Amino acid sequence: MLDDSFHVFDTTLRDGAQREGVNLTVADKLAIAKLLDEFGVGFIEGGWPGANPKDTEFFQRAQTELTLEHAQLTAFGATRRAGVRAADDPQVAALRESGAPVVTLVAKSDDRHVELALRTTLQENLEMIADTVSHLRDSGRRVFLDCEHFFDGYRHNPDYALSVVRTAAEAGAAAVVLCDTNGGMLPADIARVVTEVGERTGARLGIHAQDDTGCAVANTLAAVEAGATHVQCTANGYGERVGNANLFSVVPALVLKHGREVLPEGRLREMTRVSQAIAEIVNIAPATHQPYVGTSAFAHKAGLHASAIKVDPDLYQHTDPALVGNDMRMLVSDMAGRASIELKAKELGFDLGGDRELLGRVVDRVKSMELAGYSFEAADASLELLLREELGRPVRYFEVESWRTLVERRADGTTMSEATVKLHVKGERVIATGEGNGPVNALDRALRSAMEGVYTALADVELSDYKVRILEGTSGTDAVTRVLVGSTDGHGGWTTVGVGENVIDASWIALEQAVTYGLLRQGYEQ
Amino acid sequence: MLDDSFHVFDTTLRDGAQREGVNLTVADKLAIAKLLDEFGVGFIEGGWPGANPKDTEFFQRAQTELTLEHAQLTAFGATRRAGVRAADDPQVAALRESGAPVVTLVAKSDDRHVELALRTTLQENLEMIADTVSHLRDSGRRVFLDCEHFFDGYRHNPDYALSVVRTAAEAGAAAVVLCDTNGGMLPADIARVVTEVGERTGARLGIHAQDDTGCAVANTLAAVEAGATHVQCTANGYGERVGNANLFSVVPALVLKHGREVLPEGRLREMTRVSQAIAEIVNIAPATHQPYVGTSAFAHKAGLHASAIKVDPDLYQHTDPALVGNDMRMLVSDMAGRASIELKAKELGFDLGGDRELLGRVVDRVKSMELAGYSFEAADASLELLLREELGRPVRYFEVESWRTLVERRADGTTMSEATVKLHVKGERVIATGEGNGPVNALDRALRSAMEGVYTALADVELSDYKVRILEGTSGTDAVTRVLVGSTDGHGGWTTVGVGENVIDASWIALEQAVTYGLLRQGYEQ
Repeated sequence: MLDDSFHVFDTTLRDGAQREGVNLTVADKLAIAKLLDEFGVGFIEGGWPGANPKDTEFFQRAQTELTLEHAQLTAFGATRRAGVRAADDPQVAALRESGAPVVTLVAKSDDRHVELALRTTLQENLEMIADTVSHLRDSGRRVFLDCEHFFDGYRHNPDYALSVVRTAAEAGAAAVVLCDTNGGMLPADIARVVTEVGERTGARLGIHAQDDTGCAVANTLAAVEAGATHVQCTANGYGERVGNANLFSVVPALVLKHGREVLPEGRLREMTRVSQAIAEIVNIAPATHQPYVGTSAFAHKAGLHASAIKVDPDLYQHTDPALVGNDMRMLVSDMAGRASIELKAKELGFDLGGDRELLGRVVDRVKSMELAGYSFEAADASLELLLREELGRPVRYFEVESWRTLVERRADGTTMSEATVKLHVKGERVIATGEGNGPVNALDRALRSAMEGVYTALADVELSDYKVRILEGTSGTDAVTRVLVGSTDGHGGWTTVGVGENVIDASWIALEQAVTYGLLRQGYEQ
Repeated sequence: MLDDSFHVFDTTLRDGAQREGVNLTVADKLAIAKLLDEFGVGFIEGGWPGANPKDTEFFQRAQTELTLEHAQLTAFGATRRAGVRAADDPQVAALRESGAPVVTLVAKSDDRHVELALRTTLQENLEMIADTVSHLRDSGRRVFLDCEHFFDGYRHNPDYALSVVRTAAEAGAAAVVLCDTNGGMLPADIARVVTEVGERTGARLGIHAQDDTGCAVANTLAAVEAGATHVQCTANGYGERVGNANLFSVVPALVLKHGREVLPEGRLREMTRVSQAIAEIVNIAPATHQPYVGTSAFAHKAGLHASAIKVDPDLYQHTDPALVGNDMRMLVSDMAGRASIELKAKELGFDLGGDRELLGRVVDRVKSMELAGYSFEAADASLELLLREELGRPVRYFEVESWRTLVERRADGTTMSEATVKLHVKGERVIATGEGNGPVNALDRALRSAMEGVYTALADVELSDYKVRILEGTSGTDAVTRVLVGSTDGHGGWTTVGVGENVIDASWIALEQAVTYGLLRQGYEQ
């Protein structure tokens, strides 16, 4: 267990859930909490019990369904309403009854918000803070206080903003969190204000930064350098508008750059996995270009660099990707020189080093296919099949004669999808039909059904992902469609790519390769 | 024209093009250069003439096809090779002959890179810098020098790194640019190093920050605060690995937060348009959550805020979105209270203020459809059709009896897509068939063909975008597909959404609404 001297506080489930496009179920929230605990954060803010049924249910179910190893579950809520005692406010009661050992209270600290939005007096706002913090402390809860709009308030009326901090600290708040709610701050001003507030109040300070200037991570680090010992972040930076300070950028900076142990030992290596798993649950494609954890974060493209990376990788990366559970990766692209493709082939188990003519042929083929819309950067399996072909060892388990797929909305309102494929498998002509919940699903089922009699292990292979991208023709060419198909066989996954003007054509290419590569992995002879 | 005291230097076309997944044609590069000039940057680095045929062609065509109002075109290249005179180096000749009035030279400033990657002596590297800078200056070019891996080099061998800066400045480089090539720096260290280098060399300094710690924007601003007067950025932060400092975050911070006029007057208002146009050309979906320019950057979701925004929007946004050419936007979602939906309806021209029962019904319907996978955040047209329905004024121009769509790969290798729709339009039963380059395109053509006889203005409506998203069921539910269809009629655009287990079903819903909304815009009576 880490000591209490530094708080890594996650608010993905509360503030992160405000990101546009995010809609979490209670099951999603429980799964994310488990992952955050595996990563080793100290506090998990689960939501606002009482404010909506989903959050209330989350805290109820958490008591029996969620076992946390490191983290403490935290309930979020507001200070009591004006004119009632905290002990009598039903919203405060919901916090008390949530079962969470820690409560984060949000309070106004900008005098304009007190008067215009909260519509109460400045004095009553301070009493609401003191009363609610004391009441929850007396009820055995640990309390943090979020000062909403703190930095704007401090600019407009510093004395009042400071009195909010002092009131909360004196009432027993374990940390007073300065929030850049509108996200307009830059690091230098954050550092100055946090330093001043620390000096003038002596309170233990935290920081909550929104990313509207693109500086939330730097603002969080600036606050820590100025003395804050509590950081509020969200997984992958999810949050309202632009988002919040990204947990997976703040924590590695603290650990790897500041040399501060803010996670239990060994947990930083879980970061890439946890980041991607949370993205899956939230159902937002993982940000490929995210610092540390993105698939591109340690990917090298320029031919210039690829040749030098062979000398010493550490000269070309700011940290060892293994420390954060990521990998260095070479990209194959138009811009890369031969060195990139040679390294990539080696990654896939082919040594092209000795044959410059072969290497040149592969480079030319990759470039011309990329010109047509292919992208091998995410489709290792398709690239491997291409390499095997150029090496004179093409992989083929079947020949295609024809296929068709049909979707029909009938007059009774039901929809039917059906596909038929005609193949030649080991010399036999096979015709098979599949139904599905869409034209590609039906094709996939028909293809498997035609093959499974001969290749029984195909039963273990399944489609895990299907992505469609329309590539617009920018220079008078027609638009083409690129399809990426992800597959798994229980032991690992692979991705294949197909391109065509017709989405079904493109899908078929990717499906054909997905099945072919699956059979290759199973070790079937052709 | 701005004076020379501060340089906004864009390297989207050179360093930005190294982003994974980006492949720019020469026409793309010319179009992007034009947009960057409209935004008002001072320098546009176009590529490395001589290093690859595409960049050479770009500089050739730029001389006749590219007229720049503010920006100066800049060619990128390396210092001469070891052991030859700059005047005799063909790579340097390509820079001279590019027609660009400005040249940015990259040089090694980390002693380890000089010895291990460049494989020459520390002294020869300095001579390569002095010789190449002087030679290009003598040829009438303005020269900037990029010190590659400067911050790592300065940590490892500060004296050598400083001697690189001094050598370049003494040879006549107009700015010496300190590059955080591996992107591992944090703002506090950037500030310290830039201050020290400025004091010890007196050179005019620039900054080039990569975003591997998520701090490239803050690092750039820290360097400016420490005295740098030249910032290298890329549009939307495109670049190798995680990316570069984002031009569209750095510039508004300088203008709006530092109060520094670094653009010609009035240009900041072009920022959102230029950002999105460049994303279109690069063919990366615009980052919805990008600071300042993203569609979510000024979008408000939480019910808590929406009610207060009605009081005073400026209390809830860090800057006026109009200053950067963006808009405030209310989101409709599960989390939002009634106030959000009321504001959104007002945005669409419906006043729900007086009727709480109606408002409640709309909120419930939106929430239950979002539960089923719908998302109205990006689909204003679908939301408006839903609102009209709840207001008792549903929009219907036709009734659907049935449809079907078929894709067939024939034995001769050709593919055919065909669709048939059966509709009732103004009391008449209409059957129409369309062919297309895919199943949805064929359906779209069949639908229009059935309608155009009666609604002739439909000829002006066309599909501009088609997006497919697979929503995974996280709690034992089946995956559903969400389709967004973008349409235009030459006067404006609108987006509709459809959801279904079957991608064709979902597409049909969105198509039906796209056509319906298009007819509504044209003012057709039902």
